[in-house]
Amino acid sequence: MCRWLAYSGEPLHPSELILDSQHSLTAQALDSPLGAETVNGDGFGVGWYSTPSADDAPGRIPRPALFHSVEPAWNDQNLREITTTISSPLFLSHIRAAAAPPIQQTNCHPFRHENWLFMHNGSLAEFSKVKRDLTLAVDPSLYAEIQGTTDSEVLFYLALSSGLQDDPVVGLSTAIRETERIGHDHGVPFPVQGTFAVSDGATLWAFRYSSVGRSRSLFHSTDIDTLRQMYPDAERLSIFGRHAQVVVSEPLNDLPGVFTEVPESTVSILDDSGYRHEPFLAAA
Amino acid sequence: MCRWLAYSGEPLHPSELILDSQHSLTAQALDSPLGAETVNGDGFGVGWYSTPSADDAPGRIPRPALFHSVEPAWNDQNLREITTTISSPLFLSHIRAAAAPPIQQTNCHPFRHENWLFMHNGSLAEFSKVKRDLTLAVDPSLYAEIQGTTDSEVLFYLALSSGLQDDPVVGLSTAIRETERIGHDHGVPFPVQGTFAVSDGATLWAFRYSSVGRSRSLFHSTDIDTLRQMYPDAERLSIFGRHAQVVVSEPLNDLPGVFTEVPESTVSILDDSGYRHEPFLAAA
Amino acid sequence: MCRWLAYSGEPLHPSELILDSQHSLTAQALDSPLGAETVNGDGFGVGWYSTPSADDAPGRIPRPALFHSVEPAWNDQNLREITTTISSPLFLSHIRAAAAPPIQQTNCHPFRHENWLFMHNGSLAEFSKVKRDLTLAVDPSLYAEIQGTTDSEVLFYLALSSGLQDDPVVGLSTAIRETERIGHDHGVPFPVQGTFAVSDGATLWAFRYSSVGRSRSLFHSTDIDTLRQMYPDAERLSIFGRHAQVVVSEPLNDLPGVFTEVPESTVSILDDSGYRHEPFLAAA
Amino acid sequence: MCRWLAYSGEPLHPSELILDSQHSLTAQALDSPLGAETVNGDGFGVGWYSTPSADDAPGRIPRPALFHSVEPAWNDQNLREITTTISSPLFLSHIRAAAAPPIQQTNCHPFRHENWLFMHNGSLAEFSKVKRDLTLAVDPSLYAEIQGTTDSEVLFYLALSSGLQDDPVVGLSTAIRETERIGHDHGVPFPVQGTFAVSDGATLWAFRYSSVGRSRSLFHSTDIDTLRQMYPDAERLSIFGRHAQVVVSEPLNDLPGVFTEVPESTVSILDDSGYRHEPFLAAA
Repeated sequence: MCRWLAYSGEPLHPSELILDSQHSLTAQALDSPLGAETVNGDGFGVGWYSTPSADDAPGRIPRPALFHSVEPAWNDQNLREITTTISSPLFLSHIRAAAAPPIQQTNCHPFRHENWLFMHNGSLAEFSKVKRDLTLAVDPSLYAEIQGTTDSEVLFYLALSSGLQDDPVVGLSTAIRETERIGHDHGVPFPVQGTFAVSDGATLWAFRYSSVGRSRSLFHSTDIDTLRQMYPDAERLSIFGRHAQVVVSEPLNDLPGVFTEVPESTVSILDDSGYRHEPFLAAA
Repeated sequence: MCRWLAYSGEPLHPSELILDSQHSLTAQALDSPLGAETVNGDGFGVGWYSTPSADDAPGRIPRPALFHSVEPAWNDQNLREITTTISSPLFLSHIRAAAAPPIQQTNCHPFRHENWLFMHNGSLAEFSKVKRDLTLAVDPSLYAEIQGTTDSEVLFYLALSSGLQDDPVVGLSTAIRETERIGHDHGVPFPVQGTFAVSDGATLWAFRYSSVGRSRSLFHSTDIDTLRQMYPDAERLSIFGRHAQVVVSEPLNDLPGVFTEVPESTVSILDDSGYRHEPFLAAA
Repeated sequence: MCRWLAYSGEPLHPSELILDSQHSLTAQALDSPLGAETVNGDGFGVGWYSTPSADDAPGRIPRPALFHSVEPAWNDQNLREITTTISSPLFLSHIRAAAAPPIQQTNCHPFRHENWLFMHNGSLAEFSKVKRDLTLAVDPSLYAEIQGTTDSEVLFYLALSSGLQDDPVVGLSTAIRETERIGHDHGVPFPVQGTFAVSDGATLWAFRYSSVGRSRSLFHSTDIDTLRQMYPDAERLSIFGRHAQVVVSEPLNDLPGVFTEVPESTVSILDDSGYRHEPFLAAA
Repeated sequence: MCRWLAYSGEPLHPSELILDSQHSLTAQALDSPLGAETVNGDGFGVGWYSTPSADDAPGRIPRPALFHSVEPAWNDQNLREITTTISSPLFLSHIRAAAAPPIQQTNCHPFRHENWLFMHNGSLAEFSKVKRDLTLAVDPSLYAEIQGTTDSEVLFYLALSSGLQDDPVVGLSTAIRETERIGHDHGVPFPVQGTFAVSDGATLWAFRYSSVGRSRSLFHSTDIDTLRQMYPDAERLSIFGRHAQVVVSEPLNDLPGVFTEVPESTVSILDDSGYRHEPFLAAA
């Protein structure tokens, strides 16, 4: 129902991927060939971590910043101003195609809890049926933090309640299994559908999973050294550092070999040591 | 934390009271001498019932319409366009001074359920502490209808869960007592504060109540026949029919005798037969 | 760059055409097969005349009302509330695909001057080059009324300056020829492109014209009596009166024979006596 | 009709002055004791220059970034997110109290041209009378850049047309005199009223001038070394570097000696060498 991208690497102006790639996230907002919906115009968001400075305490990761807007991304002037001004070593951005209103900033991804960000493309099936039980399953100490009305935010708080901050893979898989259990109790055959991005500011986890085993599309970029060998004349590559990596709902350009599909039921992990992926939950 | 007005009588352009009175609701948005906050600029709403037409089934009351906006009321062009165009025999309008964000249309009053409208000035004390328990007390069949994040909307759904549609006085008093009980359980001494308006499209109930016994201000208008005798030269009175009545957070003009304060712990009832009031809950 | 529709006939809820047709204007906002752009999500507007009432002075046409919003039409809650509540014997509605920002209410069509409404699909070529000269050509007494920054609004004020209120065909053709003259002076080969709707509240004029002779698409509906004979089982036709007529950028449904293309360089005229069209300007 | 502040000095989070001072700009939005209007809720803006980095070409000043919003500043979540994240050695911020709609981002200050920012508190008297002549006086090469409909933006473009980029004092004084001449031609006795801020990213000019000789309020801060001696225990001073200076519509706190009024018909100049002021135009 949405599109998203997440970047990790040397500090970069987010505009390079959100606005100025061939199939930038904003271009996908108007025309998304691989998306469940062609148009993703129901608000957007950017969440970004600051580049650590020499004054920071060692190992300290600051709370990320958020910019949310209910306007379509393609003509939002503030989006261009902000994303060409800041630079960030790890950012997430999302464009929304709402299954239903309300279109409001509190329903824009990414969502934030302390130093964690979360975003989601997909849906919890028949959410109005299961919303109450899912929300009750959120830890009462976290309940009052829920700001919007999306399925995605409830799933994030379920994952936080299930230990996401200790182990994102365990936290999200527990939350998904709980959602599936509650869904089945309400007669929903395939409760969870989606791709998910989670970050603590140092590592980026990107998940592909659906109860029915046919998840939304997800791609990761080839490492920059390889790309430079493949495309020695590509000037655009000069803006990226050697650690630049992207996970994104669909390829940001048409060049062969730049983006590779992430397999079903997989978690991709991006950090300073590069890209790797592991099996995630098998479809229920 | 807000200001509101409700009108019952012959069909009237809502702009007459919302925009074009001496101390119209929009003027109160910028400067509210009797309000808990001077400025009420965090969105607004209008809910209105249509004038019945000859084609309607007898006794049928159509679902009211809503216009919600997050812009301040004072410069909203759509508000003027709409409220000078429509005319309505019963309408409610509200301007918000948010205790906290989010400012979004789903947090704008009045709220609607079927043919019922509800709005509130005041607050549930320490709402983040009690929100989960109050929300759990809402009938599960109504739960999924909650759209926003305000205390007021939760109270409306509690009252709906307590029979507001059968008897608004019983429904709201039960919801208030339940809110006080839950508040006291969490160590909140005075959980409820406010004035409340409820309508089914035929009758308008306006309540003044607070747990501490010092509620937000509320006034009702003198009947038009009396006003015509008091102010025989007041041309403005010519726009009102004989059944025109207003309940409002503070007087719409400075003329002596036009507005009378509603007493504490009182419910005002306005319908075709005129204005009356009755004791409501005593402070807890 | 946009899509629009205009209705004339018995009073109708605008929602029937804007929201609830097979290819309603809102559906065209997300997917416009015949449009210059597929997505029209940069704000929208509705302008409507009230149904005359028995109290009106004979022949009086009230100023139309406007509702403008910068949100995409497809998920705007106020649009549904308002257009299902009002009914109107003559209304215009427009969805915008901006060539460029700014996206703001003052750039939403239809535009209004006294009892006149105007809207436009298309563009004035290289507008930034010619804007100053075109704006200077607007009558100084009208200049201060221009609220937005679109080419369309300037063309409307040029037409008003050229006698549109006395004769819309003369007014618009004069404005178009003036625009072409100024464009040619600046080296713009084909200055005008578009379809245009104009109304005074009694008659609706719809124009199709472009300097290059290949204008944006425009269709008009077949008269209702004929449609009832063609589709005797079509329940949906029961909502329309005998005088219901629509002019629209592209057909509102797929039924053969319901919509007919308006020829190039043509003005369609809709009023109580039905639909007719006449040659308009030949391409320059 | 507005309030503004401008900062120059060591890089600072703009939130410190916009949100977190005793009488921050946001607090003044809700309650401005010295303002022409008490409430300034009709949109706001922030313009900021980036901290130069080692990679920049010597002497290069990058184009400043802008964030504009039509929501009241006091509850805008994006404003907090952005101004606590960025830091800037020179920023301008403005809150608007519109004499009239439209409330739109293109009417929010500061305005930008290349590396220059401009903002204004006050008004050009009877602007609708003089708007056409003033706009015609703008250099045709700059005309198409005007985005909004405010008097302030037209004055900025007049000043740009009069050499503001070569000498801001000459540019603005010429534009003011031209505005007064045109105003007098139209029978406007006192055409210009205001305080004005201009910057090229290195120097900040703040002007106080009105045709009638009673301008809007303007204050500048005492230098930090002096403040540290006056208030040795003031912890808050620790966030400011030795070159921190503010010019602001009214004092940001109640501490005696921290803010000094700028005299009538004066230009204040703030740069690396500190604060100074000079006579500006005498009232016409």
